[in-house]
Amino acid sequence: MNYNKIFNKLYPLCRSISGPGFRNSLKILSKFINFKIYKFRSGDKVYDWKIPMEWSINDAYILDGYGKKIVDFKKNNLHVVNYSCPVEGKYSKKSLLKKIHSIKRFPNLIPYVTSYYKKNWGFSVKHKNLKKFKTNSYFVKIDSNLSLGHIEYGLKILKGRTNKIILISSYLCHPSMANNELSGPLVLLGLYEKIKKLKNRKYTYYFLINPETIGSICFINKNENILKKNLVGGLVLTCLGGPKKNLTYKKSRDGNTRFDKIFTYLSKFDKGYEIREFDPTEGSDERQYCSAKLNFPVGQVARTVYGQYDEYHTSGDDKKFMKISNIEKSVNMIIKVIKINEHINPIERINPKCEIQLGKRNLYPNLASFKTRKQSSDNRIDNRNQLRIIQNILSYADGQHFLIDIATKLNINLSLIKKVNHILKKNKLVKN
Amino acid sequence: MNYNKIFNKLYPLCRSISGPGFRNSLKILSKFINFKIYKFRSGDKVYDWKIPMEWSINDAYILDGYGKKIVDFKKNNLHVVNYSCPVEGKYSKKSLLKKIHSIKRFPNLIPYVTSYYKKNWGFSVKHKNLKKFKTNSYFVKIDSNLSLGHIEYGLKILKGRTNKIILISSYLCHPSMANNELSGPLVLLGLYEKIKKLKNRKYTYYFLINPETIGSICFINKNENILKKNLVGGLVLTCLGGPKKNLTYKKSRDGNTRFDKIFTYLSKFDKGYEIREFDPTEGSDERQYCSAKLNFPVGQVARTVYGQYDEYHTSGDDKKFMKISNIEKSVNMIIKVIKINEHINPIERINPKCEIQLGKRNLYPNLASFKTRKQSSDNRIDNRNQLRIIQNILSYADGQHFLIDIATKLNINLSLIKKVNHILKKNKLVKN
Amino acid sequence: MNYNKIFNKLYPLCRSISGPGFRNSLKILSKFINFKIYKFRSGDKVYDWKIPMEWSINDAYILDGYGKKIVDFKKNNLHVVNYSCPVEGKYSKKSLLKKIHSIKRFPNLIPYVTSYYKKNWGFSVKHKNLKKFKTNSYFVKIDSNLSLGHIEYGLKILKGRTNKIILISSYLCHPSMANNELSGPLVLLGLYEKIKKLKNRKYTYYFLINPETIGSICFINKNENILKKNLVGGLVLTCLGGPKKNLTYKKSRDGNTRFDKIFTYLSKFDKGYEIREFDPTEGSDERQYCSAKLNFPVGQVARTVYGQYDEYHTSGDDKKFMKISNIEKSVNMIIKVIKINEHINPIERINPKCEIQLGKRNLYPNLASFKTRKQSSDNRIDNRNQLRIIQNILSYADGQHFLIDIATKLNINLSLIKKVNHILKKNKLVKN
Repeated sequence: MNYNKIFNKLYPLCRSISGPGFRNSLKILSKFINFKIYKFRSGDKVYDWKIPMEWSINDAYILDGYGKKIVDFKKNNLHVVNYSCPVEGKYSKKSLLKKIHSIKRFPNLIPYVTSYYKKNWGFSVKHKNLKKFKTNSYFVKIDSNLSLGHIEYGLKILKGRTNKIILISSYLCHPSMANNELSGPLVLLGLYEKIKKLKNRKYTYYFLINPETIGSICFINKNENILKKNLVGGLVLTCLGGPKKNLTYKKSRDGNTRFDKIFTYLSKFDKGYEIREFDPTEGSDERQYCSAKLNFPVGQVARTVYGQYDEYHTSGDDKKFMKISNIEKSVNMIIKVIKINEHINPIERINPKCEIQLGKRNLYPNLASFKTRKQSSDNRIDNRNQLRIIQNILSYADGQHFLIDIATKLNINLSLIKKVNHILKKNKLVKN
Repeated sequence: MNYNKIFNKLYPLCRSISGPGFRNSLKILSKFINFKIYKFRSGDKVYDWKIPMEWSINDAYILDGYGKKIVDFKKNNLHVVNYSCPVEGKYSKKSLLKKIHSIKRFPNLIPYVTSYYKKNWGFSVKHKNLKKFKTNSYFVKIDSNLSLGHIEYGLKILKGRTNKIILISSYLCHPSMANNELSGPLVLLGLYEKIKKLKNRKYTYYFLINPETIGSICFINKNENILKKNLVGGLVLTCLGGPKKNLTYKKSRDGNTRFDKIFTYLSKFDKGYEIREFDPTEGSDERQYCSAKLNFPVGQVARTVYGQYDEYHTSGDDKKFMKISNIEKSVNMIIKVIKINEHINPIERINPKCEIQLGKRNLYPNLASFKTRKQSSDNRIDNRNQLRIIQNILSYADGQHFLIDIATKLNINLSLIKKVNHILKKNKLVKN
Repeated sequence: MNYNKIFNKLYPLCRSISGPGFRNSLKILSKFINFKIYKFRSGDKVYDWKIPMEWSINDAYILDGYGKKIVDFKKNNLHVVNYSCPVEGKYSKKSLLKKIHSIKRFPNLIPYVTSYYKKNWGFSVKHKNLKKFKTNSYFVKIDSNLSLGHIEYGLKILKGRTNKIILISSYLCHPSMANNELSGPLVLLGLYEKIKKLKNRKYTYYFLINPETIGSICFINKNENILKKNLVGGLVLTCLGGPKKNLTYKKSRDGNTRFDKIFTYLSKFDKGYEIREFDPTEGSDERQYCSAKLNFPVGQVARTVYGQYDEYHTSGDDKKFMKISNIEKSVNMIIKVIKINEHINPIERINPKCEIQLGKRNLYPNLASFKTRKQSSDNRIDNRNQLRIIQNILSYADGQHFLIDIATKLNINLSLIKKVNHILKKNKLVKN
């Protein structure tokens, strides 16, 4: 997967929650995942929300009194407030400056400003460039359009052995930014590529690219029943590049889902994983999944987290800041989680009463050199851990406990637990 | 409310669990609350109890061998053991002294002694006055009467918007004592006055004055079904005067009711509130409410707690000890709790799926100057707490969590939480 | 009970999981408990297991090249691998040594080795005696027999007032060893003798002696439904002699059964009791009872625990190591638990609403000199604890709490709680 090439194609487009920017970006991604596109008409209601008008933009600029273009959308699409309505006309310096956003503290960064749900317009500039506003009169032009259209999302379903759903979701609605925009979809591409190759997948994977918030709301609205029935876990991907080393996981609202368990396990057993507690005040689309009575088992993964770096929501969040190499790293760290999840199950014995007679199944040679249950303890020591795992799995295999519960309880790496469980499966001792 | 005047009228009366003392005291209170009186006939069974005979007393005294009145009920009604049967006759010093109660450790205090459920008689005196018993022979007269009559209680119901019940209860059965007798009814009057004025009350308030124990048992017996169905919280008022600064709350048996939550919150956030754990061995009528299979959500409030001060159940528990000004203080501290309770609810969203679109409701101007959800973070900081509360309420509004849970979780004063919730109610985003 | 005499009779027998060794040992025990014997035929299936052939042995020895008997079963039955198939023939030193077990670390101990479920044979010797194998050729004879027969267990039921079952179980399948073999059955004899004498027993006691593992599996298989319905607690007896002072209790899988509660209470209130957490990888027949979906309320008691002493599963585990006096000690410590269990119940009031009127039942004289509930506090102090217990029992008597919960909560010895509860039972205030 040439993340760099895809990044370069996507970066210049002026995305928003609807319109050609989003649509063309999704088209670029569709070369790698053949998403099915779902559309929701402007004006329709979804839960508490109304689908907004579709936005497109051709150009936007400000000319000063000398006719000099002092702000130019074509140089950086962050210069225009996203979703600005069309404007054309003369403005005094005083009235124009009310429409200009900048950040005093970061004079070299153009802030990213939006006004999706209230009709408005405006420009963003580097604070240091406010000095360019010297004349008293300006000509402003925003050649945008707001008209009946659609909100869209792309969904790709990779069927697994079961109809239980794992959701992998990211958003595509910010203009030219890197960590907090393109890192998510790029990691999603990478995960798709790798999950597609997972042999004998247990879960059915939903790969979802939507405009943030309104897009996931549409998706949930259309799929509420199937999600209630089959969704067993979800990860919202955001901010997966940037300089921070650790992959961090924001827990689901109740904090006891499979991904909550896996990331908790990894935060203890593995370098590079960290936990964040659930907080409804920040985040991405998991806020919709975890809301009030939905309370779906969805968490969120990020590395250099939104709001925790100066370049967040500015022109400073670019490829140099994000680094393409971090995309690959994030993919690899998340695919590890996905693989773990494929193999942790509520464990259930086929014959669930009394102990299992391990000897008659010739199980011991797989584990150790001793051949009988009552052997003297000397031979036992080396393979103690393996036998311990078998016995713990079989003891707790009541349909209520997970393999990862055993790993955490025994303080043993899950890979060994999985390996041992595989033996038990081959021997038809446990289900799944 | 002239607590002093009411106190002075009530104090001299020789109250008991039945009879004119109780009835006349309740009449005095009825000038302020028009209680409905409920009567239970002597001899009738209520749960494990039998309604006792009704007691009245005109006079009681002891004459020594010289005909000198050395103990006189008319000087202090504590001198006679409450519920004493009629007596008239001569007694030797030896046999009379077996009927005399005093406290060696507190020679200046007359102890308060009762014998409600076993036929008996006796006198209480200051220990130092035992020396007055000099002669060998005494004439004893107790001009009392035990006859078929009633146990009574007074109940006033203040209807609220809902039929969910908050119980405010106190007792009226001790003779001339202040902290452990009159403080409770006086505080109840004060609470009634203030709750009556609460606009748009949510709860239906039951104001109950009963003889302790037997009275609340009668009340529960008559109202068991409605209490099971509608009682959501209750406070038994006792010992609400006296020198101790803090208002203390004795938890209900399970310790997780609304008042348990409120007092726990206050004990952390507010000066002047303290928690006592549930204990079935001491207390007042909450012992009946919290018993075995009733297990009603009722706690108890007190300030200078029974059994924890020397003057308890003696003639030393008078107005000087109690101080009228403490009644007012207690009323104010409890009304604060009542008001909090009016505004903490299991929070439930009207549209409980996905996030609420706050922008379109013009909610932001109430909170902050920024207008869009995706605004640059600079504007956000000042109003962070308010937005945080809105988002937390809406996230946890699943009908299981309370506003006070949000306050405790966020470590934010409940008044702010309430204020914010009010905005949400006005916007028809949350129920209640 | 002459434990020493019984021990001496049992010790020399070459027990195994089936055959004359087991059968004759059970016959010796049957002089003290008239067990009913249950038989399960070789080849039949029980859960995951198949009943093995029955094993008997007359003799076994090794002759060296000079015809000298260098290993002799008749000197110590541990010399032969238990369940060895018949062997007769010449063996080279090299091939014979593959069949010889010894422990380098303990050169003076003969290890105990078995091969129940895989056809095999072998000898065990003291490591220091390996030097006796000097010649190149040997004659080996194991005069054993494996044929269709039975697995057996002995069950004695002592009926109680209720059909709720307490299981007392031990095993009888190891050859000449003391702590990890004979201590269990001997303690079971002692417990039987004492429980038989318990007047007005509440519980129905099942005394079970079985070959370890396969025997309890047969027992569970035959009694699964009645155990599911009526088993309220069980103790597996093992390793109850030896030098360790404390009796230790291995908790059941869920850790909240009556015996879990009692041993936890004792580990806090009494010297000599300790708790071990549940572990499916070690132990005795409780592994079957606690398995996956059975999850029966069975724990295990031991003193000098298997695997925690050097002599475990060797010829060093003899009477000198175990000491007969420890058997008596263990019996006494366990009978204490049994007696506690007879008297802890989920407490439930007959009239469960409001407080009980203690006065009218003349309960106070049983407790204290004060006669009325409202007496002055002076008299109350001495009997405070007793009244406290009554009030706590009656308050929590909702069918959910146990007497031992009250003991733990009040930090009061259970014997006093029991005594007080007895008064309440006599007065028909509580059930059971």
